[in-house]
Amino acid sequence: MAGCRILILHGPNLNLLGRREPELYGRQTLAEIDQLLKKRARDLDVQVGTFQSNSEGALIDRIQEAMGHLDGILINPGALTHYSYSLRDALAASGVPLVEVHLSNIFAREPFRHHSVVSPVAVGIICGFGEESYLLGLEALLKMITKRQD
Amino acid sequence: MAGCRILILHGPNLNLLGRREPELYGRQTLAEIDQLLKKRARDLDVQVGTFQSNSEGALIDRIQEAMGHLDGILINPGALTHYSYSLRDALAASGVPLVEVHLSNIFAREPFRHHSVVSPVAVGIICGFGEESYLLGLEALLKMITKRQD
Amino acid sequence: MAGCRILILHGPNLNLLGRREPELYGRQTLAEIDQLLKKRARDLDVQVGTFQSNSEGALIDRIQEAMGHLDGILINPGALTHYSYSLRDALAASGVPLVEVHLSNIFAREPFRHHSVVSPVAVGIICGFGEESYLLGLEALLKMITKRQD
Amino acid sequence: MAGCRILILHGPNLNLLGRREPELYGRQTLAEIDQLLKKRARDLDVQVGTFQSNSEGALIDRIQEAMGHLDGILINPGALTHYSYSLRDALAASGVPLVEVHLSNIFAREPFRHHSVVSPVAVGIICGFGEESYLLGLEALLKMITKRQD
Amino acid sequence: MAGCRILILHGPNLNLLGRREPELYGRQTLAEIDQLLKKRARDLDVQVGTFQSNSEGALIDRIQEAMGHLDGILINPGALTHYSYSLRDALAASGVPLVEVHLSNIFAREPFRHHSVVSPVAVGIICGFGEESYLLGLEALLKMITKRQD
Amino acid sequence: MAGCRILILHGPNLNLLGRREPELYGRQTLAEIDQLLKKRARDLDVQVGTFQSNSEGALIDRIQEAMGHLDGILINPGALTHYSYSLRDALAASGVPLVEVHLSNIFAREPFRHHSVVSPVAVGIICGFGEESYLLGLEALLKMITKRQD
Amino acid sequence: MAGCRILILHGPNLNLLGRREPELYGRQTLAEIDQLLKKRARDLDVQVGTFQSNSEGALIDRIQEAMGHLDGILINPGALTHYSYSLRDALAASGVPLVEVHLSNIFAREPFRHHSVVSPVAVGIICGFGEESYLLGLEALLKMITKRQD
Amino acid sequence: MAGCRILILHGPNLNLLGRREPELYGRQTLAEIDQLLKKRARDLDVQVGTFQSNSEGALIDRIQEAMGHLDGILINPGALTHYSYSLRDALAASGVPLVEVHLSNIFAREPFRHHSVVSPVAVGIICGFGEESYLLGLEALLKMITKRQD
Amino acid sequence: MAGCRILILHGPNLNLLGRREPELYGRQTLAEIDQLLKKRARDLDVQVGTFQSNSEGALIDRIQEAMGHLDGILINPGALTHYSYSLRDALAASGVPLVEVHLSNIFAREPFRHHSVVSPVAVGIICGFGEESYLLGLEALLKMITKRQD
Amino acid sequence: MAGCRILILHGPNLNLLGRREPELYGRQTLAEIDQLLKKRARDLDVQVGTFQSNSEGALIDRIQEAMGHLDGILINPGALTHYSYSLRDALAASGVPLVEVHLSNIFAREPFRHHSVVSPVAVGIICGFGEESYLLGLEALLKMITKRQD
Amino acid sequence: MAGCRILILHGPNLNLLGRREPELYGRQTLAEIDQLLKKRARDLDVQVGTFQSNSEGALIDRIQEAMGHLDGILINPGALTHYSYSLRDALAASGVPLVEVHLSNIFAREPFRHHSVVSPVAVGIICGFGEESYLLGLEALLKMITKRQD
Amino acid sequence: MAGCRILILHGPNLNLLGRREPELYGRQTLAEIDQLLKKRARDLDVQVGTFQSNSEGALIDRIQEAMGHLDGILINPGALTHYSYSLRDALAASGVPLVEVHLSNIFAREPFRHHSVVSPVAVGIICGFGEESYLLGLEALLKMITKRQD
Repeated sequence: MAGCRILILHGPNLNLLGRREPELYGRQTLAEIDQLLKKRARDLDVQVGTFQSNSEGALIDRIQEAMGHLDGILINPGALTHYSYSLRDALAASGVPLVEVHLSNIFAREPFRHHSVVSPVAVGIICGFGEESYLLGLEALLKMITKRQD
Repeated sequence: MAGCRILILHGPNLNLLGRREPELYGRQTLAEIDQLLKKRARDLDVQVGTFQSNSEGALIDRIQEAMGHLDGILINPGALTHYSYSLRDALAASGVPLVEVHLSNIFAREPFRHHSVVSPVAVGIICGFGEESYLLGLEALLKMITKRQD
Repeated sequence: MAGCRILILHGPNLNLLGRREPELYGRQTLAEIDQLLKKRARDLDVQVGTFQSNSEGALIDRIQEAMGHLDGILINPGALTHYSYSLRDALAASGVPLVEVHLSNIFAREPFRHHSVVSPVAVGIICGFGEESYLLGLEALLKMITKRQD
Repeated sequence: MAGCRILILHGPNLNLLGRREPELYGRQTLAEIDQLLKKRARDLDVQVGTFQSNSEGALIDRIQEAMGHLDGILINPGALTHYSYSLRDALAASGVPLVEVHLSNIFAREPFRHHSVVSPVAVGIICGFGEESYLLGLEALLKMITKRQD
Repeated sequence: MAGCRILILHGPNLNLLGRREPELYGRQTLAEIDQLLKKRARDLDVQVGTFQSNSEGALIDRIQEAMGHLDGILINPGALTHYSYSLRDALAASGVPLVEVHLSNIFAREPFRHHSVVSPVAVGIICGFGEESYLLGLEALLKMITKRQD
Repeated sequence: MAGCRILILHGPNLNLLGRREPELYGRQTLAEIDQLLKKRARDLDVQVGTFQSNSEGALIDRIQEAMGHLDGILINPGALTHYSYSLRDALAASGVPLVEVHLSNIFAREPFRHHSVVSPVAVGIICGFGEESYLLGLEALLKMITKRQD
Repeated sequence: MAGCRILILHGPNLNLLGRREPELYGRQTLAEIDQLLKKRARDLDVQVGTFQSNSEGALIDRIQEAMGHLDGILINPGALTHYSYSLRDALAASGVPLVEVHLSNIFAREPFRHHSVVSPVAVGIICGFGEESYLLGLEALLKMITKRQD
Repeated sequence: MAGCRILILHGPNLNLLGRREPELYGRQTLAEIDQLLKKRARDLDVQVGTFQSNSEGALIDRIQEAMGHLDGILINPGALTHYSYSLRDALAASGVPLVEVHLSNIFAREPFRHHSVVSPVAVGIICGFGEESYLLGLEALLKMITKRQD
Repeated sequence: MAGCRILILHGPNLNLLGRREPELYGRQTLAEIDQLLKKRARDLDVQVGTFQSNSEGALIDRIQEAMGHLDGILINPGALTHYSYSLRDALAASGVPLVEVHLSNIFAREPFRHHSVVSPVAVGIICGFGEESYLLGLEALLKMITKRQD
Repeated sequence: MAGCRILILHGPNLNLLGRREPELYGRQTLAEIDQLLKKRARDLDVQVGTFQSNSEGALIDRIQEAMGHLDGILINPGALTHYSYSLRDALAASGVPLVEVHLSNIFAREPFRHHSVVSPVAVGIICGFGEESYLLGLEALLKMITKRQD
Repeated sequence: MAGCRILILHGPNLNLLGRREPELYGRQTLAEIDQLLKKRARDLDVQVGTFQSNSEGALIDRIQEAMGHLDGILINPGALTHYSYSLRDALAASGVPLVEVHLSNIFAREPFRHHSVVSPVAVGIICGFGEESYLLGLEALLKMITKRQD
Repeated sequence: MAGCRILILHGPNLNLLGRREPELYGRQTLAEIDQLLKKRARDLDVQVGTFQSNSEGALIDRIQEAMGHLDGILINPGALTHYSYSLRDALAASGVPLVEVHLSNIFAREPFRHHSVVSPVAVGIICGFGEESYLLGLEALLKMITKRQD
């Protein structure tokens, strides 16, 4: 596990966390979530890079830059989840295991949020647990990377 | 009303106004429309900022920057109207009243233009009146802001 | 503009305004809204006639009577919006510009209210601003009539 | 229960009862059914008014007239069941409990009869029992009014 | 055939014939078409009554009044074609052969005009031949009545 | 009527009545409802057997056991309403009149509850009146059995 | 009208007329219908050619051969009505007025028969009158040809 | 957390784990997974009960028995995920937090597996991580219970 | 059974059997299958005629020629299965029992192959057993003919 | 073939055979059909076990018990055909060839019966031949087992 | 490339080229296009055979005749594009690379032309360039054959 | 042709060519393809500019900058093909002929790739030929530009 390199991506509007509808998305800021993730990563002896953007293109650029130096991706695609086939293609092209997470239970919200164009190229999906979705997702991703390396 | 701060947003391709299919979108340029809006704003003693971008991400960034210093948003999302759930989420997250406008009557055009993903988070919608859609939209937005403050 | 003749039509149940679900439709009665519209019309030096009916047939009769003495129609078709192809045909046959208005934002309500069979034959649509939808609609209609006469 | 005022409405073509397809709708005339309902009402010490019309507008007018002097509505909307959003809005606006009845089992007939636009605003629905649907519906309506008053 | 009684019905907006979109509906007025039909009826020694209304309810009333004194119905339901299940039920209840006609070819127009709720209860349908649709429809109806009487 | 044998069936989760979401399903337990039904049955001089199960198979077994000794079935199929074609087939095979009841108005709830696979094989349906749905259903069922025996 | 040349086409299985389901299609054979049509044509002083085939390709070949020597087409496409876009294209390419006829009322039969791929390129449609559909269709076609020549 | 009582449910065919399509579902048996879960539960000082059944009714019975002595449910509903509204209602009625897990990524399989009728009543969903889905699900469930108790 | 006359039809591309995708359709040629069928027919003392064509029209012609001298039809319509309403009508018009067979399991292949327009007019369907589908189909057809003659 | 072990399964309501709608399902009882199947099995020197249940869970249990001692499954899933993904998964998990049979032609009945969730995991399907469907299905299954063993 | 054998197929109505709607399909005749193709083929040292038919069956026959002596197929299926699964199967069975071409941009025309049943079995598709579609298609096909042979 | 100016655009992820799924997209890098295109352009004496971006906004900006200095556009929109109405509007607004190309045959891949929102505003489409799609597209575009200039 040691030395494993993970890219953590946050899609549009996730930089508003803590400010936007806290009853739905929780009261923690994205910076606080990133801190939690980095701390957990240190404990697990893996390297994580985090990146948030409101731009689909910037997220794809970031994925492409990391290609070749990467063992897995953890992503909360925000609302791009529901239509960004470009992001999906970039994630599939990365060639590394992908875990998709959501803070809220997207299946208990508006119908357009029930369908993810990203899920078919992910290893697994975790949603509905607030910031814990990220931490569990990191854990799950590492388990999947380990399993593949076996 | 005095001191009320309004953000006016123009989505992709609206910078082509006056150049692109004038029989559909009219002969006025976006700069001319922005001038009309600013003049009307001065008359009404409100502050307006205007912003156009072809980039979904840049539009979302602009909305987020304005959050906290804003009393309302007037937007013509261009073709993002029909698929940008990310823009919708940013507008909903802004927490201020939103008015959606279109130059043409989108319900009299191609089927894909009949559905707006933005409308459910708007206070109201105005379409079909060319540049007047914007001016009426500004007026409507101010009325709604006043009503809320009552 | 002077001498311009406008027919203002209110569809089924709009005579209940002020009595019916005021949190959704506002507290003003239809008589009060008609007064506001007539006052605005006087200021703008145009003639308006107003008519409400719960009967699709009576609304169509009224449109047909006015044909030939009419420069524009402002209509809130009420729930007929969603199925009355007969009303649509009468409005299209009138040969004058049509503006469709709604008190509430129909796109933020039940799915059956998201589709208007009238919109494709209107010049433009305004919804979501309570009684202001009518006043803005009158203004918009006059602008469109003027533009055509240019 | 005493003094409770109930409006009983019959939609289009129900005045043909006894004449039209008796194997489907039974052999009793509407007048006979109204007599049964009035007799039952006397027994239960409630006042009922009955009204049939082939006109959607007239049915809505009748509901609006009764508003304010009414404790419940019993309606068989006839074929308006399947498309009259205007009637639905009038019934919802009445503010009193509504029971929807049908003589035949609409779910065992043509597909277009399987969907009622009225049901979502009713307290309950009874169908398939011929004239008994009305009598059971009256009974059910009174039970619901009593329950609310408790 | 002699003494055969036919009711000819015209739905909403057909009283505008000759005035409304003549390139689509022809230049003859409804009065002229009724004259043609009456003349043809005299030649064929049958009695015809004609009736136009913009009101669904009035059309149904007229059908019900004629029941028992009627051998066939010829109807152009106008836009009610596409949604009036109440009219359909009245026509079916009449118990006499029904011929549905349209001036224009409804299958070459907007999608909503491609579906008729009346057709399943008609003997036959004729559309696309302008006023000839009516004359051919009358002829066809008489043939069908004769055939049944054989 | 005397000696008439009725089977009353309750589908999955109805044994939770009184415990589960009382604002939706009422505060009476199933045992209390069964008592009410048995008392009413005694008054009407009919025999009723009641049975609840969370198992589709057990419900079908119970229907089959009763076949040949049965004059009618009253059923609240619970959520099996929406998908159990096996239960539907068993009910249809029983050869006796069937009345379907629901405590809540299923047409005012989630979309998946708007469709019943059982309704097409029922004589009639009653829903929305809480425990009264059962009592009215029993009454209706007896009326239908009597009518058939006439 | 004199000298007008009409091609009458019968699609697959129409050669079985008189033999196949006479209660649905009548008892006349295709030869008898062709005789009736030829007799009527002589009375009207027009030339008709008739052709039946079970082969889509042969029907198209026949249309193409006639091109340039043709003033109108009368066709009963049989079941090709519902899927033969190739036949539709051939008919549209012929450049002459087209009348589509059916013996039965296709809108009162199985759902797949409710949609015609030919209708959008026809002048008009006549269905439901047995062999009279053809005779009325011939009459209608000649009227349309005359009208165009005016 | 101590003393927290969790019910772990496995739907149809999950007792085949290790035997059935191991490339899809992994090589561990259900007994082994239950052991892992119990071990983890001991570490976390919570009580878990596990139950597998191929019978929808038995699963519902088990949930109902546990009601009142339960702090959370962890379920892999197997193929019942896609149609068992009865199971959904039982889970919703339990009144405790629910976590839904799947061994495989259901969104990367056949279309019928993309829709879960259970998800809308769950707190969160975890899928795609083999037996880790269960362990992460247990962890997530405890976090959610703790959060609610705060 | 003796003297029973059966027509065996093979639709488009079935003459390629043995050459085309043998892993899907088997290695036997159509001639070999016809031999097997004729041998089986001799054993059963029935007469069979076999016919293959790539032309829908030729298949219909063949069915029509056989009418009146025929006791049953066995058909593998090839890809015509999915759209040839003309073939369906010819088969229905034949008036004799029809058995539809397919070499492969059409429900385990591309979605367009899941729907047969022929099945509703067949007595029964057999698919998925390679050349055995034909032999079982012949057997089944004879059983059905015998049963009818009883 | 000798020693080949076949499990024959009958789904819900098939125990009613002979009693239930004999015009649709035939007059033979299930016991008689099982006798026919056992006799045929003896002739073919194979072992068959038969099992009927109204419970999805019991059918799945029976399949799982047989796993490892089984060479093929013949099933008539009754109405479970149309929704039991759990049964489908059990059948697929069995790892042996599966033949699906139906007494009636399910494609000539109500639309919900046109779709089988079991067919995609079967080798082949036979329907429409009454009890012969089972006998042909047994024969077909043995042919497929033999072919695989070659 | 030398000696490569290409079959060029033209579907229904393409023999009308130059005569039929030249603004849509161009002014060149099919003979002229075939000449261009043959000239280009000579330049490229490949053999081409061309064939046009209005008959689906004849096109399939032609493909089957060429099988075994063929290196590639270039086809414009005309309107068969949209429904001929038989043609699709013949093309797939040919075992050689297939290029599908259209003169017009089928995606800018009527909705039924947007879907091709042939495309999934083609190597590639070219449309919208008039006769150039064929020439580019020939070039593309040869490139693909060469690539495969590498 | 000389001096003709062509803009060649590559959408998201096309910069990964040669690295990403080479069996699907080929082994050539985008730089190599651009070289091939530039070489071909020199041979044809036209100027080409090439541009790739992962950002929808940047692609639209690039199109707008080129407007007025441009004779045609060749675009592979990548996954934006399937949802970017903004890109479509920019391309339509450019006013020059557009050719859409894809490396793979999008109609033989996942269903979401079968629909292009760009195609209706293109002159023509070429897909499935790897890097040859671009070269053929350039050739086709020049032919179309020349044709227009004639």
